[in-house]
Parts: sequence; structure tokens; C-alpha cells
Amino acid sequence: MQWLLYFDLFGVFVFALSGGFDGAKYRLDLFGILVLALATSLGGGIMRDAILGAHPPAAFTNETYFFTAIAAGLIAFFFANRVERHMEFVRIADAIGLGAFAAIGAAAAVRHELGWVGVVLMSILTATGGGVLRDLLVREIPMILRADFYASAAIVGGLTYMVLHYEGVPEGYCMAIAAASASVSRFLAMHYNLNLPQARN
Amino acid sequence: MQWLLYFDLFGVFVFALSGGFDGAKYRLDLFGILVLALATSLGGGIMRDAILGAHPPAAFTNETYFFTAIAAGLIAFFFANRVERHMEFVRIADAIGLGAFAAIGAAAAVRHELGWVGVVLMSILTATGGGVLRDLLVREIPMILRADFYASAAIVGGLTYMVLHYEGVPEGYCMAIAAASASVSRFLAMHYNLNLPQARN
Amino acid sequence: MQWLLYFDLFGVFVFALSGGFDGAKYRLDLFGILVLALATSLGGGIMRDAILGAHPPAAFTNETYFFTAIAAGLIAFFFANRVERHMEFVRIADAIGLGAFAAIGAAAAVRHELGWVGVVLMSILTATGGGVLRDLLVREIPMILRADFYASAAIVGGLTYMVLHYEGVPEGYCMAIAAASASVSRFLAMHYNLNLPQARN
Repeated sequence: MQWLLYFDLFGVFVFALSGGFDGAKYRLDLFGILVLALATSLGGGIMRDAILGAHPPAAFTNETYFFTAIAAGLIAFFFANRVERHMEFVRIADAIGLGAFAAIGAAAAVRHELGWVGVVLMSILTATGGGVLRDLLVREIPMILRADFYASAAIVGGLTYMVLHYEGVPEGYCMAIAAASASVSRFLAMHYNLNLPQARN
Repeated sequence: MQWLLYFDLFGVFVFALSGGFDGAKYRLDLFGILVLALATSLGGGIMRDAILGAHPPAAFTNETYFFTAIAAGLIAFFFANRVERHMEFVRIADAIGLGAFAAIGAAAAVRHELGWVGVVLMSILTATGGGVLRDLLVREIPMILRADFYASAAIVGGLTYMVLHYEGVPEGYCMAIAAASASVSRFLAMHYNLNLPQARN
Repeated sequence: MQWLLYFDLFGVFVFALSGGFDGAKYRLDLFGILVLALATSLGGGIMRDAILGAHPPAAFTNETYFFTAIAAGLIAFFFANRVERHMEFVRIADAIGLGAFAAIGAAAAVRHELGWVGVVLMSILTATGGGVLRDLLVREIPMILRADFYASAAIVGGLTYMVLHYEGVPEGYCMAIAAASASVSRFLAMHYNLNLPQARN
């Protein structure tokens, strides 16, 4: 289970960075940045645990989550001036966190013996919950609605995890491969500017 | 309990339509529309189950919910161009879903032996939770605040369910009558443009 | 435990006032004001209970919560015209509620045997959850991000409670002192206009 923890902390770190840099963009003060870093990085996991009935959530009992998020928030605060194109950085950190959390969400759903629809929904929720919270708090249109292949990248991650798990692949490899598949899907969509069709109004 | 499931799926379908058409209005792509359809139709029930301690929520274990919401989202996507006045349609679908979910919420609260305040609060939460999520995601002022007789229609449904239940009316009839009473309240308010007094500023 | 209940109801009352006056500011009608009063005053506690696994939350089982919030909402509705500077009043009511709910959140976390990080997170969540909901619903930038020493005042309250509790101070005194410490921190920050540094963009 050490694998799982390290993986989760990695996702927390990159999502907290994305929240922190986003806060710096909106000229929040130090505490606003830390709050946004905490909400972005812990929000999705807390929702997942509240829904699956894991009381209290890991973020409340294992203090490493808190310190990881605070560390990333401080980094965002102190390096905000150097990273001129930090919006690009926010999107990259967000894509990496998306992959890690999609895999974590799938693993939690599989452990609770959910079917593939439950796994997919839990991947979407865990991977996008914190980011939706971040976007709502700073009043942007949530990335899950405006970004291409965002929720769909989480679905790719969730399904990959599930297939590998039922093929008997060890949990650590399931995690890493599922996370990579989701993040790579998102990167490809960002790079090639892939678009899904819009409704014809 | 089949009654209950069909009723719930009906509410999921109309709320997913309302979310999907709303997404089309904001020119979201196919996936954005499906995400908004899922959030609008499953959001209220997931909140209800997380609060009542039904882990994991029905939406994660019974795959029919997912497929119903996706089907309604696809319909919204493909028919967005034909339904010129689809804003009117969104409001009608929303009013029908409001009634169905107010009855479902009341039934869940009664099963958990809550008193009438608990029943009323659970009716409001189940009936308006998904719509609030939809409105927050597309950054509109939530209908629960700006629409007349919206939360109050949910209260009518919740109280109707409770009275009928304690009169010994079978569950199926409680459901249907409570849902109808809530939806009709909302329709009347929309039709006659009923207004409650505003605070005198 | 009577202490705890009265304290909680006090927090509900002042937060419902803040939500109600905020609703009057946005010219909501009577029901919109009551909905906003309910969401602001009960939202944080419901989130806390859903996360800690207290099913169903106190707000659904003890009807006094509901009536307290409704009473405060009605007061806001009827006195909205007299309180010319009610924005100032909203901020004061909000600061007092912040203290009460930070102490309540800390007490719940200590009862669930969480460590100091869990206590701090639960104080922040309980004290700011309802206000964030209020601000999201009326589409303002949440006070937790824009106000100085807001989440930090909740942290002061949570840590104060925890230290006093482990020193063996009776629960009622822990509550009162922790709440006062948080509210006073917030008042001082408002009065002296204390600012934390911003990130250098």
C-alpha cells in the first residue's frame, strides 16, 4: 500500500501547485494561495471518501497530505514571479494530477467492488473534483467543461486500471500505467488541439 | 421497490435533458454536454446518499442510472439545433425532474425515520442539488435563488409525500401524487408568474 | 452536551443572518432569502457530518436548527430596509459565526480522535463551508479567498480548542475561549486591515 500513498501524494503535490499558481494569477495573498492549494489537491479525495463511506478521509488522518499541499502552495507563492508562463505550467500540472487521481479513484472503486460504471464515475470525480472546486472558487468556467478530452482522459485512466487489475497485473503497475494513459491522453489532446464536435445550434 | 427505481430513472432522464440542453446553449462540445447531463441528473442523489450514509450511492452501483443520463445527454446533443426554444424546454424538464426528485428525497428521508423538517430538507436537497451544480458549473445564478416557487415546490412535494405515507397510502401512489403536486406547483408559478415579496431595500 | 447545542445554534443564527442580509442585498424574494439563510447556516455542519460519517447530520434530525435559521432569515427579510449599512453587519455576523463554527468543528474532530492537522482542517471546513456556499450561490469571490485572516482565524480557533482540551479544560470553556479567539482574530484583522503578502507577479 506504500505505492498507493506515494502516488496519492504525488497527485496532491501537482494539483496543489496548479491551485497555488492559479491563486497567484488572481493576486491572492499567501493564505488565499494556501487555501486554494489545499482545496484543489484535497477536495477530490475528500469527496471520494465521503461518498464511499471512508470516514474520516485520509486527508484528515494522515498529516503528510496536508504538509505536501502546503509545501506546493509555498512553492507556487515564492516562484510565482519567475514562472512567466505559469498558466502553461498550471495546465501541465493539472494534466499530471488528473492522471494520478484517475488511477487512485479507480483503485478505490475496485476495492469497493464497484462495476465499470462505478469505476469510471469515481475516476472522473476523484480526478476532476478538486479542479472543479478550484475553478468555482476563482469563478472560472470549470476546465472539465471547457477543456477537450478532460473528463474523457479520466475515463481512459479508470478503464485502463480496471482492465489491468482484472488481468492480474500488480497494483503498482496498474496505478502507474493507468495514470500515464490518462495524462498522455490529456497531453495529446492539448498538443494536437483535438476537438469533439459541438452541438449545432 | 421497482416503482421507486423507475421513478428515480425518470427524474434522472429529465434532469439530464435539462443539463444537456443547457450545455448546448453554452456551446459546449459533446463531452461537456455529457458531463453536464451527468452532474445535473446524478448530483442531487449522490449528495443525498452521502449525507444519509448510503455508501456507495445507487448511481455508482446500478448502471442504468449512468446509461439513462448518457442517453438523455446524447438526445440533447443531437436535437439542440431543432429545439429553437429549448430554454423553455429546459425549464419544463427541470420542473418535472424537480417533482420526481422531491418525492424520491422524501421517500429516502422517511425510510431513515427523519421528522418532517428532515423530510423537507431532504426533498429540497435532492430536488435542487443537481440543478444547483449545473447552474454553478455554467456560472448562472442558481434557479433555486432566482426562480419563484422553486424550493417551495420541493417542500410541497416533500410534505405531500409525508402526509400520504402516514395516512397509509401505498408507496407508489405517495410517489406519484407527491411528484405531481410539486411539479404542478412549479408549473402554476411559472404560468401565472407568481411572485413572493422582495425585501424592501 | 447542552453547551454544544446552544453554541451550534448561536453559530447557525448569525450565519443565517449573514446569508439572509446577503440575499436581501441581491434583491432575492422571501424564499430566496430563506434558502440562502439555510444554505449558509447549515451547509458547513452538513459537510462536516457527511465527512465524519455522522449520518444523518444533526441539521436533519434536530428541528431547532431549521427553525433557528428560518427565524434569522425572516429577521433579515423584515429589517433589510432599516439596516442601511447591512454589509458591515454581514461581515460582523460572519466573523462571530466563523468563531463559533471553528470551535464546533474542532470539538467534532477531537471527538473523532483526529490529530492536530485533522482538527485544523475540520475547523476550516466547518467555519467556512457555509460561507463559501453562500458566496458561490450569489456569485461573489468567496470571502475565504479575498478576506484577510479568514481561514487563518478558523485555524487559531481550532488550535486553541485543541490545546485547551488537552490541558483538561472543561468542554464549555474550551468552546467559548476557542470561538472568542477566532472571532477576535478576525475582528482585529478587519479593524487594522491586516494584510498578508501577495505573490510577486
